[in-house]
Amino acid sequence: MPASKGYAAHSAQSPLAPFAFSRREPGPTEIVVDILYCGVCHSDLHMARNEWGNAIYPMVPGHEIVGRVTATGKSVTKFKAGDTAAVGVIVDSCRNCPSCNNSEEHFCHEGATLTYAAKDRVDGSITMGGYSSNYVVDERFAHTVPANLNLAAVAPLLCAGITTYSPLRHWNTGPGKKVGIIGLGGLGHMALKFAHSFGAHVVQFTTNDRKREDALRLGANEVVLSKDPAQMKAHAASFDFILDCVSAPHALDDYLPLLRQDGTLTLVGLPEKPPAFAPFNLITGRRSIAGSMIGGMEETQQMLDYCGHHNITSEVEVIPIQKINEAFERMLKQDVKYRFVIDMSSLK
Amino acid sequence: MPASKGYAAHSAQSPLAPFAFSRREPGPTEIVVDILYCGVCHSDLHMARNEWGNAIYPMVPGHEIVGRVTATGKSVTKFKAGDTAAVGVIVDSCRNCPSCNNSEEHFCHEGATLTYAAKDRVDGSITMGGYSSNYVVDERFAHTVPANLNLAAVAPLLCAGITTYSPLRHWNTGPGKKVGIIGLGGLGHMALKFAHSFGAHVVQFTTNDRKREDALRLGANEVVLSKDPAQMKAHAASFDFILDCVSAPHALDDYLPLLRQDGTLTLVGLPEKPPAFAPFNLITGRRSIAGSMIGGMEETQQMLDYCGHHNITSEVEVIPIQKINEAFERMLKQDVKYRFVIDMSSLK
Repeated sequence: MPASKGYAAHSAQSPLAPFAFSRREPGPTEIVVDILYCGVCHSDLHMARNEWGNAIYPMVPGHEIVGRVTATGKSVTKFKAGDTAAVGVIVDSCRNCPSCNNSEEHFCHEGATLTYAAKDRVDGSITMGGYSSNYVVDERFAHTVPANLNLAAVAPLLCAGITTYSPLRHWNTGPGKKVGIIGLGGLGHMALKFAHSFGAHVVQFTTNDRKREDALRLGANEVVLSKDPAQMKAHAASFDFILDCVSAPHALDDYLPLLRQDGTLTLVGLPEKPPAFAPFNLITGRRSIAGSMIGGMEETQQMLDYCGHHNITSEVEVIPIQKINEAFERMLKQDVKYRFVIDMSSLK
Repeated sequence: MPASKGYAAHSAQSPLAPFAFSRREPGPTEIVVDILYCGVCHSDLHMARNEWGNAIYPMVPGHEIVGRVTATGKSVTKFKAGDTAAVGVIVDSCRNCPSCNNSEEHFCHEGATLTYAAKDRVDGSITMGGYSSNYVVDERFAHTVPANLNLAAVAPLLCAGITTYSPLRHWNTGPGKKVGIIGLGGLGHMALKFAHSFGAHVVQFTTNDRKREDALRLGANEVVLSKDPAQMKAHAASFDFILDCVSAPHALDDYLPLLRQDGTLTLVGLPEKPPAFAPFNLITGRRSIAGSMIGGMEETQQMLDYCGHHNITSEVEVIPIQKINEAFERMLKQDVKYRFVIDMSSLK
């Protein structure tokens, strides 16, 4: 059994601390990945502190994984030892339902297996995430990585990247479309890069005017200070699509009137308090509120390949694992541009 | 100027009472319609009692109008004296914006002119609705009526009919699709008839088990008692589309998990309190909440023609205008199957 070491939470109150465990033996279609980098997603903090009420301890967080393949099962075709591989938010699914058959494994009718704090479909153990030295995963749930990209900056593509790429593709953003991005954080900055790259006219909404320069640098055509009603009103009924990347409380009714007829506002953040909306803002213009989460395995690979062709990665601050608890505190203060990534060589 | 008489509200507190007024002279593209029947929409009650805060008194309600053409402007091509004509919720628009040019006049960028309690675009007067002896309207905003239909039962098609027909068409309900209808009232019973006619598998949701037989008679394949969690759970993740026809408070989160991947729940009712929803219910399955209101002029005519071909009308209880205040009270008790229609000959 491959030995692994990582950092784990042992309760909602305790900081992450060194933790040794073992992975299961790889099956015929599985690979062993030595982890080089793992992104730090805000959901890692929510989960470690049991803020969603579904924690299982000890918990090794981490689902933005990039590493090197060290062993392959005998039936593996996609990887060989030495290849770079990436693993995201899910590591298994039923592989048999209509969604799985359509490579929308994230919508698996039985529920996909999450990369950590979930019951492993193979051996019933609890999955342990990427804040660790290695991972064992079926090749279907691992992705190849374009050779030209900085690997530390690739890691956040596995969650923040695909979470924003997928809805921007699904709702056909591109040339001739006006797209709004709410929030400029881990998700928002990736949304901004993708929407710009797809050729849309991109408007970044922010509550913080100091982010203006960064937003313009990352691809925004315009920046709107969302707390200024005059700036907001100037964009009334003009957006084809708005991607809402904010988890903090905010009023959907500030944004819905900015959608044009048949426009959609899609949530990818997970606000704790159920948001409310005035039905009038939907029926006048046949507007929609939708939700989207990560993406399927084929689309995740497409996203990585797209990033390779267009040289898109995340803006990251690389940290050693010993600074993870400090990084959590800084995330809470939004003191990160725009994603922490753990250099896993610091584990050794 | 054509003299008119009708029933008007003079304040939010006063019952409707007889009221004499005059219509403006018809212009070259306008027609004069002697009103035969006018449906009683729940919004008439909301408006008369100023429950939406935008009342203008004296107010003659009514926007489900069927009548006989008595005069036509010299450029009118669609009607001649003696024809049956129908008028719905809007009677004018800018006629020049992208939505109007696409015959989506109800989404007019300048705002369409409502049939009553709105400022007339021609002479600046306040529009007076169909609880009256006649109406003057541009032929673009009047519709021909199939000869085979009962005219009293046609009247509610102009609001309840098009309000449900349009979203059921827009979201492509039909054979192979599973469609839910929430609420079996004025809107709901028309939604049920249309969805059934389009060939969908239709499930009627109701809080009142005594409506079961009626729902089956009107076209439901199944009836679900929405307050029974077991009945609801049996339909988890199975609906392509749900049309929500209820204005009373109800929990969207009871219904969103019943949508399959990429399914949509569309509101056509206008709940007073902004509804809330758990974002989790949208992102797991990329589901949407949308809104829809009435339909454009071309689509309204298509709906009427469809009703002629398929012999679809509303279930109505015909009343004399003298019973309108009693009808309002009975509507509040949901004591109507399923739409009151005023026989305007009672005015004489």
